[in-house]
Amino acid sequence: MSGRALLQHFGDAKMALERLPDLARRGGAAHGGRICTIDEANAELAACNKIGVSLVAPGADAYPPRLATLDDAPPVLGVRGVPDTLMRPMIAIVGSRNASGAGLKFASQLARDLGETGFVVISGLARGIDQAAHRATVGSGTIAVLAGGHDKIYPPEHEDLLAALLDQGGAISEMPLGHVPRARDFPRRNRLISGAALGVVVVEAAHRSRSLITARMAAEQGREVFAVPGSPLDPRAAGTNDLIKQGATLVTEAADIINAVEPIMERPIALSAREDDGEPLDFDADATDRARITALLGPSPVSLDDLIRMSGASPAVVRTVLLELELAGRLERLGGGLVSMI
Amino acid sequence: MSGRALLQHFGDAKMALERLPDLARRGGAAHGGRICTIDEANAELAACNKIGVSLVAPGADAYPPRLATLDDAPPVLGVRGVPDTLMRPMIAIVGSRNASGAGLKFASQLARDLGETGFVVISGLARGIDQAAHRATVGSGTIAVLAGGHDKIYPPEHEDLLAALLDQGGAISEMPLGHVPRARDFPRRNRLISGAALGVVVVEAAHRSRSLITARMAAEQGREVFAVPGSPLDPRAAGTNDLIKQGATLVTEAADIINAVEPIMERPIALSAREDDGEPLDFDADATDRARITALLGPSPVSLDDLIRMSGASPAVVRTVLLELELAGRLERLGGGLVSMI
Repeated sequence: MSGRALLQHFGDAKMALERLPDLARRGGAAHGGRICTIDEANAELAACNKIGVSLVAPGADAYPPRLATLDDAPPVLGVRGVPDTLMRPMIAIVGSRNASGAGLKFASQLARDLGETGFVVISGLARGIDQAAHRATVGSGTIAVLAGGHDKIYPPEHEDLLAALLDQGGAISEMPLGHVPRARDFPRRNRLISGAALGVVVVEAAHRSRSLITARMAAEQGREVFAVPGSPLDPRAAGTNDLIKQGATLVTEAADIINAVEPIMERPIALSAREDDGEPLDFDADATDRARITALLGPSPVSLDDLIRMSGASPAVVRTVLLELELAGRLERLGGGLVSMI
Repeated sequence: MSGRALLQHFGDAKMALERLPDLARRGGAAHGGRICTIDEANAELAACNKIGVSLVAPGADAYPPRLATLDDAPPVLGVRGVPDTLMRPMIAIVGSRNASGAGLKFASQLARDLGETGFVVISGLARGIDQAAHRATVGSGTIAVLAGGHDKIYPPEHEDLLAALLDQGGAISEMPLGHVPRARDFPRRNRLISGAALGVVVVEAAHRSRSLITARMAAEQGREVFAVPGSPLDPRAAGTNDLIKQGATLVTEAADIINAVEPIMERPIALSAREDDGEPLDFDADATDRARITALLGPSPVSLDDLIRMSGASPAVVRTVLLELELAGRLERLGGGLVSMI
C-alpha cells in the first residue's frame, strides 16, 4: 500500500494510529508474534511518548517526504529528533562495516561536503562507513535508520553517536519498541535508507555485500545510485567498481552527486506511478479476496504484479491483504516487489 | 594524407621509398633541418637495412593495418621485429611513469591476460606502466612505439627490454635514424600507439598527464578508451577516474576489454571516412594552392577542416601540401586534426 493511498485512507497521522489497533484486530496484527490488542497498541503509544518517539503516517510532518512515495512505505513510522531535518533533501551514504582507512576518510569528507551544501546524510548507524558518515554530519544534520525498535540500538556502542546526532538530526524505525533487530531486518531496513533519499552513495563494498542490496533497492525505487571507485586489486572496491560497470555514477567528490540530483530536486516529489493512474481507492478486502490471495502465497517469493494478475483482485485490495499479513508477522517483503510467507 | 590515399598514390611500399627523394626535392623535405638529397635518402635505406629496420608504407606487410586508417598515418614507417605480430589485433596499455606498486602489478596482470587471449600489447617503452605492460608480454608479442629513431632508444636503460621483445614482437617509428626524441615528439608518437590499437587502456594517470593525451587521441581516432579506477584519495587515479566520468569503459579485468572490442574485430577495418566518400584523387598541388594554404598557416593551431574550407582547395591537395611542409620540417601536427607552422 503506497503512502498516498494510506494517507487518503487514514486521513492523517492521528487517524492512522487510531486505525492501527483496528487493522490489527481485522488482519491479526502481530506484536512479537502474538495478536496485538487495543490496550497493547495504547501501551506502545505511551512508551513511545516517554522516550520522545512520535508515530507518524505518510504525509505527516517528520515523515520523510520521499519515503512516503514508496509502494511499501511504512504505514506508521517511529521518529525522533528534529522534525525539520527529516523533511529536508537527503543523500544516503552506505558501505562496508570493515572499511579501509581511506574509505572511512573519504566517507567523512564526502558527508561533510554534502552537509555543508545543505543535504541531510542518511545511513544505517552501522560500524565503518555508516558511522563515519553520521559522525561527520552531526552538526549539519544526519538521520539514522534503525533495523530494530528505538529502544534497541544496534550496535549498542553507537548509542552515544545516536544521542549526539539527535541534536540536529533524527532517527527513524518502522519496528515497535522492544524489537531486537534480526539479520533479516537489515535488508528490510535498507529500503528505508534508499527510499528516503534522492540517491545512495556506496563507499567501499566487497562482492555480495549488504550495501549492494541497498544499491539495488535504490535503483528499483528510482533513486540515483552512486559508487566510489577503487583499485581493481582492492577487494573492498570490487562491489563499487561493479556498480559503476552496471551504470552507477562514479563519485570522487560531492559535486558529482550534487550535479546529478539537482535536476531531480527541482521536480515535485512524484508519488508512486501505481497510484497516479487514477485507480479507485478500494481497500476493503472481503473474505474471498483474502483467501484467494493468501492461497497464492508460499515460501517462494512472488511479485506483487503476479499476485494482482493471478488473484484478479484490485491492486489496492492485494496491498491491503499483504499489509494485514505483514502486520500479522506472516509475510516477508524481499525487495523488488517480491513477497513470501514466513 | 590518409593511408589509402598514399597507397593509391605511391602504389606500394617500394614505390613509396622511390618517391620519397622525389617528394623531398619538390617540397623541400628536411633531414635534420637540411634539404635531403637522393644520396642521403639512399644512405638512410642502407643504414636501416644494417640494423634490421624495414621501411614500409600503409597497406604493406608489417604496417599495422589500423594505423594505416589514420588521416595522418605515417607515409613511411620504420619497423623491426616479427612482421606477423605487427599485423595482429592490438590493445594499447599506457599510464604513469611513476606508477604505484599496485598500478604496475595490475598493468602486468592485465597485459598478460590480454596476451594469453591473443592480443598484441602496444605501448611506448617508457618507465612505469609501459615497461610493465611490455615486460609481461615479451613471450606473447608486444610492440614498442618509439618517439625517436630506431637507433636512439629512450630511455636508454630500456634497450635490453627492446631487444627481448623483438624476439616475438616489434618496434615501430616514423622518425629517421639518428633522431633523438624531443619532448614534442612524444604526443606525436602517442597518436601511433592509439591509432594502431583497437583501444587504449589507461592504468593510473594523474590530472593533466601525458597518458590522458593518448586517451584523447584514441577517442578522436574512434578507438575505444578504457580506464582503470582507483581511490579518489589517490592522485595517480585522478586522471583515470575522470576518464570514466567522461565515458571511458571501467576496467578491472581483461574481460572488460575483450567484451568491448570483440564486436569491432568482427567488422572489416574501416578506412578513413574522408577517403570513403569517393573524393577524386587529385594530389597535384600547384604553386597557387601551395601559396594560399601556406599563407593560412602560422604558429597558432588550425584544423585541417578549416584549411580546406578557407583555402578552397580539395582535401587531397591540402593534405599533400601539409605533407610537403611536414617533410620540410616546417609543420607540426598537434593531434585532433590541428596543425601549426614551426
